[in-house]
Amino acid sequence: MNATQAIDLRSDTVTKPDAEMRAAMASAEVGDDVLDGDPTMRELEERAAQLLGTEAALWVPTGCMGNTIALMLHLQRGDRFLVPRAAHVLDNELGTAAWLAGGMPEPLAWDAGPGRPSPEAVTAAAGSQGPYYRLRTPLLCLENTHNAAGGAVTAPAEHARLVEAADAAGLKVHLDGARIWNAAAALGVKPAELTAGVDSVQACLSKGLGAPVGSVVAGPQGFVDEARRVRKMLGGGVRQGGVLAAAGLVALNRLDRLHEDHEAARELAGGLAELGLRVRGPQTNIVLAEVDDLQTWLTRLRAAGVLASSMDGCVRFVTHRDVSRADIGEALRRTAEVAQG
Amino acid sequence: MNATQAIDLRSDTVTKPDAEMRAAMASAEVGDDVLDGDPTMRELEERAAQLLGTEAALWVPTGCMGNTIALMLHLQRGDRFLVPRAAHVLDNELGTAAWLAGGMPEPLAWDAGPGRPSPEAVTAAAGSQGPYYRLRTPLLCLENTHNAAGGAVTAPAEHARLVEAADAAGLKVHLDGARIWNAAAALGVKPAELTAGVDSVQACLSKGLGAPVGSVVAGPQGFVDEARRVRKMLGGGVRQGGVLAAAGLVALNRLDRLHEDHEAARELAGGLAELGLRVRGPQTNIVLAEVDDLQTWLTRLRAAGVLASSMDGCVRFVTHRDVSRADIGEALRRTAEVAQG
Amino acid sequence: MNATQAIDLRSDTVTKPDAEMRAAMASAEVGDDVLDGDPTMRELEERAAQLLGTEAALWVPTGCMGNTIALMLHLQRGDRFLVPRAAHVLDNELGTAAWLAGGMPEPLAWDAGPGRPSPEAVTAAAGSQGPYYRLRTPLLCLENTHNAAGGAVTAPAEHARLVEAADAAGLKVHLDGARIWNAAAALGVKPAELTAGVDSVQACLSKGLGAPVGSVVAGPQGFVDEARRVRKMLGGGVRQGGVLAAAGLVALNRLDRLHEDHEAARELAGGLAELGLRVRGPQTNIVLAEVDDLQTWLTRLRAAGVLASSMDGCVRFVTHRDVSRADIGEALRRTAEVAQG
Amino acid sequence: MNATQAIDLRSDTVTKPDAEMRAAMASAEVGDDVLDGDPTMRELEERAAQLLGTEAALWVPTGCMGNTIALMLHLQRGDRFLVPRAAHVLDNELGTAAWLAGGMPEPLAWDAGPGRPSPEAVTAAAGSQGPYYRLRTPLLCLENTHNAAGGAVTAPAEHARLVEAADAAGLKVHLDGARIWNAAAALGVKPAELTAGVDSVQACLSKGLGAPVGSVVAGPQGFVDEARRVRKMLGGGVRQGGVLAAAGLVALNRLDRLHEDHEAARELAGGLAELGLRVRGPQTNIVLAEVDDLQTWLTRLRAAGVLASSMDGCVRFVTHRDVSRADIGEALRRTAEVAQG
Repeated sequence: MNATQAIDLRSDTVTKPDAEMRAAMASAEVGDDVLDGDPTMRELEERAAQLLGTEAALWVPTGCMGNTIALMLHLQRGDRFLVPRAAHVLDNELGTAAWLAGGMPEPLAWDAGPGRPSPEAVTAAAGSQGPYYRLRTPLLCLENTHNAAGGAVTAPAEHARLVEAADAAGLKVHLDGARIWNAAAALGVKPAELTAGVDSVQACLSKGLGAPVGSVVAGPQGFVDEARRVRKMLGGGVRQGGVLAAAGLVALNRLDRLHEDHEAARELAGGLAELGLRVRGPQTNIVLAEVDDLQTWLTRLRAAGVLASSMDGCVRFVTHRDVSRADIGEALRRTAEVAQG
Repeated sequence: MNATQAIDLRSDTVTKPDAEMRAAMASAEVGDDVLDGDPTMRELEERAAQLLGTEAALWVPTGCMGNTIALMLHLQRGDRFLVPRAAHVLDNELGTAAWLAGGMPEPLAWDAGPGRPSPEAVTAAAGSQGPYYRLRTPLLCLENTHNAAGGAVTAPAEHARLVEAADAAGLKVHLDGARIWNAAAALGVKPAELTAGVDSVQACLSKGLGAPVGSVVAGPQGFVDEARRVRKMLGGGVRQGGVLAAAGLVALNRLDRLHEDHEAARELAGGLAELGLRVRGPQTNIVLAEVDDLQTWLTRLRAAGVLASSMDGCVRFVTHRDVSRADIGEALRRTAEVAQG
Repeated sequence: MNATQAIDLRSDTVTKPDAEMRAAMASAEVGDDVLDGDPTMRELEERAAQLLGTEAALWVPTGCMGNTIALMLHLQRGDRFLVPRAAHVLDNELGTAAWLAGGMPEPLAWDAGPGRPSPEAVTAAAGSQGPYYRLRTPLLCLENTHNAAGGAVTAPAEHARLVEAADAAGLKVHLDGARIWNAAAALGVKPAELTAGVDSVQACLSKGLGAPVGSVVAGPQGFVDEARRVRKMLGGGVRQGGVLAAAGLVALNRLDRLHEDHEAARELAGGLAELGLRVRGPQTNIVLAEVDDLQTWLTRLRAAGVLASSMDGCVRFVTHRDVSRADIGEALRRTAEVAQG
Repeated sequence: MNATQAIDLRSDTVTKPDAEMRAAMASAEVGDDVLDGDPTMRELEERAAQLLGTEAALWVPTGCMGNTIALMLHLQRGDRFLVPRAAHVLDNELGTAAWLAGGMPEPLAWDAGPGRPSPEAVTAAAGSQGPYYRLRTPLLCLENTHNAAGGAVTAPAEHARLVEAADAAGLKVHLDGARIWNAAAALGVKPAELTAGVDSVQACLSKGLGAPVGSVVAGPQGFVDEARRVRKMLGGGVRQGGVLAAAGLVALNRLDRLHEDHEAARELAGGLAELGLRVRGPQTNIVLAEVDDLQTWLTRLRAAGVLASSMDGCVRFVTHRDVSRADIGEALRRTAEVAQG
C-alpha cells in the first residue's frame, strides 16, 4: 500500500492466496470427485469435519451454496424457519432460503445480544404445532459470527441454550458459520464447541483464512450424502476439485492468524470512536459505524482511498490478512479527513 | 342458538349462504369459463372491478389463491417484498409468498398504527437499488383491514401516502383486501377509495358478505389476463363457475350490512374490557384479546360454548352475519365465567 | 339446437348442471370445510372413495389441481416419472408436473395400444437405481381413459399388469382418471376395478357427469391428509363447498348415463369415416379425426356450426350429455359440407 | 498404465490438469470476482466469448450450472421447450430443467441423424401459439456434440437450418456445447460457426480440454449480466476464481489436441466392431456399444480393467487426453476377453 492506493476493507472475501497456498494447489493430487471422490477433497472434508465436530463434511464452491443446500434439506414448502434478524441467509443470498429452499422466514429480534435471540424467544416463536393449514416450524438457523451485528460472537454456553430451546421445540438447527473460525478464535475455544448439537453447519475456507474459492457444509453422514446430491443439482459438482481443496487445507492450518484481524479491528474501532463515530462491535474482524448518510460516507471514503461496504444501515469495515496494521493507521487518517468534511 | 349451542366467533369464514343467495345460485346462467367465459362470472368480475375501481377482475376460489397469483405476477426469484408484520400472506398462506411466488419478505413494524407501517419506513426499507448480487425490491404488499392487527383499517389518506412512498421508490403495490369491504364500511368510503394507485387487489366474497366460495383478484386488464393463466396453473380454472359467481353478486349487494358486524364487535370488545381483558381494536369486526395463556383460554372458552381462534398471540373473536346481538350477549356471559376461572 | 346454433363438441367440460343438480346445490347442508369439514363435502368424499375403492378422497376445484397435488406428493426435485406420451399432465396442465411438482417426465410410447405403454416398457424405463447424481424414478402416471388417444380405455387386466410392473420396479402409481367413469362404463366394470393397486387417483365430477365444478383426488388416508394441506397451499381450500359437493353427489348417481355418450361417439365416428376421414377411437366419448390441415379444419367446422378442438394433431370431437343424437346427425351433415370443401 | 491398472474410459471428465496448467494456476493474477471482477476471469471470459462468437461469456463451476442458468433465463413456468431425445439436460442434470428452470420438455426424435431432429420436426413441434391455458413454447435446446448419440456432431449447415426453423417459430435457441470443441475439431470448423444464431451456449473447459474445474455460458451482454446474477443465486459466485480461469485459458489453447481423442475413438470403435459389437458413432470421442445385458457388461469390463459407463442403454467409452493409444490397444484386448465370456 502506498498513499495513492486504496485500502480495501470492504470484506475479508478480497483476500488472495499466497505463495504457500498456490504451491499446495499446484501440487495437489486430484481425481474425478463426482465419479470417485478426489483424494485431496476427501482429505479436506475429513479435516473440516474433524474441526467442526461433525461426522462428515462436503466441499462447496461458496458459502451461499452451503447454506442453500442445508436449508433445502431441512425445509419443505409450507415450512417456516426462525432466524435472527438481518441474517446473511435473509439479506445476502438472493432469497434462496425462500424461493429455492421453500422457507418462510420468521426473523427474531436480537433480544439476547447483538445478532442473538434469546432461548425464550426461540421457544415462543416455535409455538405449538398448529392445524394442517398453518405453517410448520422445523428449523432454527443461527449465524456465528453474525455479520450484520458487527461480527458478534455467540459463546458456547449461549449456543448450547439456544440449541436446547430448539431441541425442546422439535426444531433442527443449522449454523451459518461462514466466520465460525473467527468466533472460535475470539472466544479461545475449539470450533467444535460452537457447533455442539447442530444438525448442519456451513463454514468458509475463504474470507479470513484466505482460500480463493470454497466452503464446507457439514453434519451427519446421511445429511452429507444428500447434500452431495443437492450440490450436483445446483451445479456445484466439480471434477478435479482437489486443486481448490488443497488451498482449503492450507487455510485450515491458519485458524490462529485470525487474532491479528481481531486486533486490527479493535484498533480501527477505537480510532473511529475517537473520530466521534458510533461503533458497533468489534467482537471479531467486523466494525460497523453508524452514520447519518450512508451512501455519502461510502462515496467520500472511496474518494479518500478507503473502501468500505454497507451492512444493516451502517458503514462496514472488515479487517483481513491482506491489510497490515500500517494500513489500518492510514485508513484511520483518511477516514479522519472524511469525518472532518 | 340455545344455551347448549356453541357461539362460533372463530372467523367470519363460517358464514353460510342464505335462501336468497342459494336461489341466485340455483338459477344462475352458466358457461364453460375456461373456453368461453361464463356469463355470470363475467357479470361478477365486471361488478367487482367497478366496485374496486380497477380495469378488470378475476374470480378465484379463495383469497389465498388471489394473493398468491398477484405475488407470483409481481415477484421473481431474487426479489424482496415489503409487508407489514404479521400479514396474512406471511403467517396464514402456508408460505406461498416465499416458495411459490419466490419472494423474500421484509416485515415492517407497525410504526404508523395497528397493522400499518409509515411511508417513511417504506421509503427506508425500499432502499436504493444495490449491486447485482443483492435482492431487488419491487413490491409493497398492504393489508386492509389488517387481520392480525384486530381488523385495523387504513384510511384513504394514509393509504395514499403509502402508495406515494412506494411509487417514489419504484415499488408496485398489492393490496390484500380480503376484508376491504369492512374497511370501507367502517370508514364510510367507497371501496375504490381504498385501492387508489394499487397495481392489484384481492377481495373476498365470502367472510362477512356470506358467499360460500370465492374471492376476486383485480387490477389492469393485462394483469388480469396473466392472472387468468396463473389461475389455470394453480388449478383454479373452474368451468361452470357461474353458480358461485351468482352468490358473489348477491354478496356484493350486501356491503351495507357490515356495519352490523362492527357494532357487534364493539359491544363484544366493551364487554371483554369490562371483564378486565386487554383488547386490541375493534375498528371493524375483529376483536383481539391479550391473555396470558392462550391455549388454556381457547380450551376453556370452547368448553363454555364460545368458539374463538388465535391470532398474533391473542384470542381472536370475529363477528359476522350468522351471530346475532343476542349471541354476543350470551358469548360475553359465557366468557365472564371463563374469566372468573 | 336449431340450424343456426353451433353444436358444441369441443369438450364434455361444457356440460351444464340441470334442474335436479341445481336443486341439490340450493338445499345443500354446508359448513366451513377448512375449519370443521363441511357435511356435504364429507358425504361426497366418502361416496367417491367408496366408488374408487380407496380409503379416502378429497374434493378439489379442478382435475388439474387433483393431478398436481398427487404429483407434488409423489415427486421431489431430482425425480423422473414415467407417463404415456401425450398425457394430460404433460400437454394440458401448463407444466405443473415439472415446475410445481418437480418431476422430469419420461414419456413412454404407446406400445401396448392407444394411450398405453406395455408393462415391459415400464420395467425397462424404470431401470435400476443409479448413482447419486442421476435422476430417481419413483412414479408411474397412467391415464384412463387416455384423452389424446381418443378416449382409449385400459381394461382391468392390462391395468393390473402395469401396476405389477411398477410395483416390481419400486414405483408408485398415480392414475389420472379424469374420465375413469367413462372407462368403467365402456368396459362394464366397477370403477374400483380400474384403480386396483394405485397409490392415488384423480376423477372428475364435471365432464360427462355434469357437475359444474369439482373433481376428487383419492388414496390412502395419509395421502389424503397431506393432499388437504397441499390443496390449501394451492388456494383450493374453499369454505362452504357443500354447495358444489351436492352437485358432485348427483353426478356420481349418473355413471350409467355415460353409455349414451359412447353410443353417440360411435355414431359420430362412423359418420366421419364414411366421409373419408381417418378416425382414432372411439372407445368412449372422444373421437379423433386425422386431418391434413388442422387449423383450417377447425376454422371451417366452426363456420359450419360445429365446434371441435385439437388434440395430438387431430380434430377432437367429444360427446356429452348436452348434445342429443339429433345433434350428432346434424353435426355430421355440417361436417360433410366441410369435407366436400 | 500397466497390466493391473484400470484404463478409465468412463468419461473425459476424468482428465487431470498437467504441469503447464498447474503452473498457470499457481501464478494467476486474481481479484474478488463478485465485487470487482477477477482479471484472469475477465481474460478467460473474453477469450471464450471470442472463440464462441458471442458478445460476452461467464465462467461457471460446471456445465450443469451453465445449462441451468441459461434455461432459467429463457424459460418461465408454463413454458415448454423442444430438445432432442436423450439430451444431457433431460437425463443427466437431475431434472433442473424442469423443477428449477420450470420447463416442460418436449423430446424430439432424431429424425435427421444421430442426436439431431429435423428443422421440420422443430417447426411442427413449435406449433402455433395456443390459448392462454396451453403451454407456450419459447425455446429450442440443442446439444453439439450429442453425448447420448455417441458424440454425434451437427455441422454448420444443419445447425443453421435448425436455428432458422426456431427463428421462424419465434423460439430462442440454447446450445449445450459441453463438447462443442470436439464438434468443431471433427468438422474442421471454428467453434463460432457452430453457435451462429444461438441465444446462448454452454461450453466446458474440463473434459477433453483438461481444466480441472469450469465451463462458460455465453451470449449477448444482457444475457450474461443476468446470468451473473443467477450464478450468484445458485452459489456459483466464487471470489478469486482466477486460479481456475488460468487453467481454462490453457485449456482453450488446446483445442487442436482433440483430434487425437477422435482418432483413438475410431480405433476403439473399429476394434469393438471386430469383436462383433454393434457400435454407434464415433464421430468424435464417444463410442457407444449396444449390448444385451448392460449391467453385466459394465461389471465384467471393470473386472477386466476397463472402466466404462452407461448411456442411452449402451456401454459408453470416452477417449481423452489421459489415455494413450497404447491404452486403447490394451483396452481392446481386455474387452475381447470379456466378449469371449
